[in-house]
Amino acid sequence: MSKQIQTHMSPIIGYHRAPLSQKFGAPRQPNLVALMSAIEMIAPFDTPAAFVGLEGFSHLWLSWQFHHNKGLNNQQASLQQGMQIDSSFRAQVRPPRLGGNQKIGVFASRSMYRPSQMGLSVVKLERIDVVAGRVILIISGADIIDATPIIDIKPYIAYSDSIEHATSGFAPAAPTPSAVTMTVNAQEQFAVLVDSDIKSRVPISSKSVIEDIQQRLVATDLPLIKALIAQDPRPAYRRNEINTSFTMRYKTVDVSFCQVATGELQISSVVEVV
Amino acid sequence: MSKQIQTHMSPIIGYHRAPLSQKFGAPRQPNLVALMSAIEMIAPFDTPAAFVGLEGFSHLWLSWQFHHNKGLNNQQASLQQGMQIDSSFRAQVRPPRLGGNQKIGVFASRSMYRPSQMGLSVVKLERIDVVAGRVILIISGADIIDATPIIDIKPYIAYSDSIEHATSGFAPAAPTPSAVTMTVNAQEQFAVLVDSDIKSRVPISSKSVIEDIQQRLVATDLPLIKALIAQDPRPAYRRNEINTSFTMRYKTVDVSFCQVATGELQISSVVEVV
Repeated sequence: MSKQIQTHMSPIIGYHRAPLSQKFGAPRQPNLVALMSAIEMIAPFDTPAAFVGLEGFSHLWLSWQFHHNKGLNNQQASLQQGMQIDSSFRAQVRPPRLGGNQKIGVFASRSMYRPSQMGLSVVKLERIDVVAGRVILIISGADIIDATPIIDIKPYIAYSDSIEHATSGFAPAAPTPSAVTMTVNAQEQFAVLVDSDIKSRVPISSKSVIEDIQQRLVATDLPLIKALIAQDPRPAYRRNEINTSFTMRYKTVDVSFCQVATGELQISSVVEVV
Repeated sequence: MSKQIQTHMSPIIGYHRAPLSQKFGAPRQPNLVALMSAIEMIAPFDTPAAFVGLEGFSHLWLSWQFHHNKGLNNQQASLQQGMQIDSSFRAQVRPPRLGGNQKIGVFASRSMYRPSQMGLSVVKLERIDVVAGRVILIISGADIIDATPIIDIKPYIAYSDSIEHATSGFAPAAPTPSAVTMTVNAQEQFAVLVDSDIKSRVPISSKSVIEDIQQRLVATDLPLIKALIAQDPRPAYRRNEINTSFTMRYKTVDVSFCQVATGELQISSVVEVV
């Protein structure tokens, strides 16, 4: 017998547009890497009137949907039909932060396998673009990938949201980044692929603003790529492997790297996605 | 013709249990008043396994439903039917913080009149009770009232969530509290109503834990009542009124107060709700 459960429904108000289109390589928490990305609002939520006053805030909260979670579609369908989710509720998860072996409660984690299927990230507001009357928020520091559906945007209010001395259990500080080096070959490959067109690029459409963010490889992408790899995107159970190659897709290139010595990751190639 | 919009659905995982059952008097942001309250989890989300590891965190994020918003039921019904919400979307709000006159964009505010119909609050985790196998979280500092549906609970991670130097537009600091005094008559009324039963109260059921929070008036409630009134719960457009009486319901009592001089609010009576 299915049991009716109470639910809450929200509209999707926009989509994230970002250099990372795959989960592999995405930062595990916000503000670890100052990656530039955008939120393309959708009608009717894209009106500039809805953002008046936001320019005075340096940071934003994003509520977003874990759209890459395989169970999402099933859960959304079950909820829409008012069915019970008792059988699909998983009370515990194994966070990467704890090496992927130790189990903790799902409500003690930021894991995607949570009943709400929603993530929460604070990001920096870089600027508010209005292109052809539609709002595009340019942000940095997001830990979410391209095409992520956005459920809410709220201003960050420092006096109530910033609890500097909060105790944070198993995540007391940002993970220590690995050292990242790059072969001469990979450096040369990157240099050739960079778009060195220095002509002024005035955004004339939301498409051009977003294409730049998603696809246009520029020289300043290199320190960002290194910072992403320094977070060690490899799954916890494979972190001891030496010389195994992993590939992170960034904009239009595939960046391959491997661990050459404990704590040192080396970028070995940068090739254009065919 | 109605247009299909994308939505996100989450289950309600628990309910807030608190001394304040009405919106009048509720703090306008979290952590302004250290009011003790509880989250009563509902099955299957009430299993202690889902909270293992949470005890190491001092603070939590709550995502919750603005269930007192009059438009909520209409919006939820429209979304369930896949209907457009263009006509109901209000792009701007008048925050109390700006005196209730100035309009700003809804995404530049924490207003309840937002498309997601969800609020976000950081609260202090006081302890995790397990009563008859079910989890009740005891928290403090919540800005939400009794019976508020809870959509998500996440640990507060200081290194990514605390942005100490964030710029916060029209809300750069907590509002200045008013001075609060109390007539001798009101002090005597309060003293009589306090439950001075000092016998050890070991919680034997979730009902008794929650009843204490919602209903049992104790001596330490007085500084909390004063702190709530110091936030000046009166609507912005009535803040100039002198000697007009307003009443805040707290647990089982009605607390009446009025402004006796600019910036000074006086509690004139504390009477039991009949």
